[in-house]
Amino acid sequence: MDPRVDLITLGVPDVAAARRFYVDGLGWRPTLDVPGEVLFLQVGHGLLLSLFGDDALVLDMGLPAGRSPVPGADPDPPVLRTAFTLAHNVESDEEVRTTLAVAERAGGRIIKPAQRAEWGGVHGYFSDPAGFCWEVAHNPGWSVDADGTVQIRPVEPG
Amino acid sequence: MDPRVDLITLGVPDVAAARRFYVDGLGWRPTLDVPGEVLFLQVGHGLLLSLFGDDALVLDMGLPAGRSPVPGADPDPPVLRTAFTLAHNVESDEEVRTTLAVAERAGGRIIKPAQRAEWGGVHGYFSDPAGFCWEVAHNPGWSVDADGTVQIRPVEPG
Repeated sequence: MDPRVDLITLGVPDVAAARRFYVDGLGWRPTLDVPGEVLFLQVGHGLLLSLFGDDALVLDMGLPAGRSPVPGADPDPPVLRTAFTLAHNVESDEEVRTTLAVAERAGGRIIKPAQRAEWGGVHGYFSDPAGFCWEVAHNPGWSVDADGTVQIRPVEPG
Repeated sequence: MDPRVDLITLGVPDVAAARRFYVDGLGWRPTLDVPGEVLFLQVGHGLLLSLFGDDALVLDMGLPAGRSPVPGADPDPPVLRTAFTLAHNVESDEEVRTTLAVAERAGGRIIKPAQRAEWGGVHGYFSDPAGFCWEVAHNPGWSVDADGTVQIRPVEPG
């Protein structure tokens, strides 16, 4: 697994409120803007920040709402780790599986095994020893220009 | 405020356990490694991931331990937002102040006003409407090579 973060996802209770702050307030220009659903903002070379409904994020992770993704995680202090995830893109569906296996061998815990994602690619989730969650994804619609600009185009579900 | 994340900090209960996973397990090479205290890993062009003690992170944010940084934040489900922060670097001490003011006008909440940081620069924290916390920092010891590699050198306290 290469040391690389491609996407930071913040699970927010109100995507419209997040939009008012980041787009209207700070003046950041969306890469992708689906009102009330999700907002993607470029925040670095090949790096996006995603503002995504927290319920939708928990669902995407394959978890029941409101539950910590780490069985047996220390409940004191209570931490909803699902409020944010880091994502790591790989080049093939198979590499999603092998990368999750690498993370598990390294001491991570598989939260969601590799599977077809709603957006057309393949993804899975693991947590690190502290409970922080990483998504591993193959998204054929994601590309990065030479200057670091991320392009996202729809993917035909396979 | 430019749309840019420079540093992702994960507040972990055990920095040595995080090191075993990311360095020994995944094989990622530290940019900075202070055993038991902090671990910096390069995870993108000009982007570092920091594994930092969660108690130390809360202290750095100027908050009492275990408390949510957002007064009045929804306690159900309980969310310890301090478990992670995003950092945004600026070019001068004065720009830390003006950037925090911009974030406040945009609807953010000042968590820690601009002040001299232990590591020699100047920093402050604000939270976005969902409670996610951003550090705004001027770190004269932080530089980015043309290829995106981050260099960190000690700063003389001013």
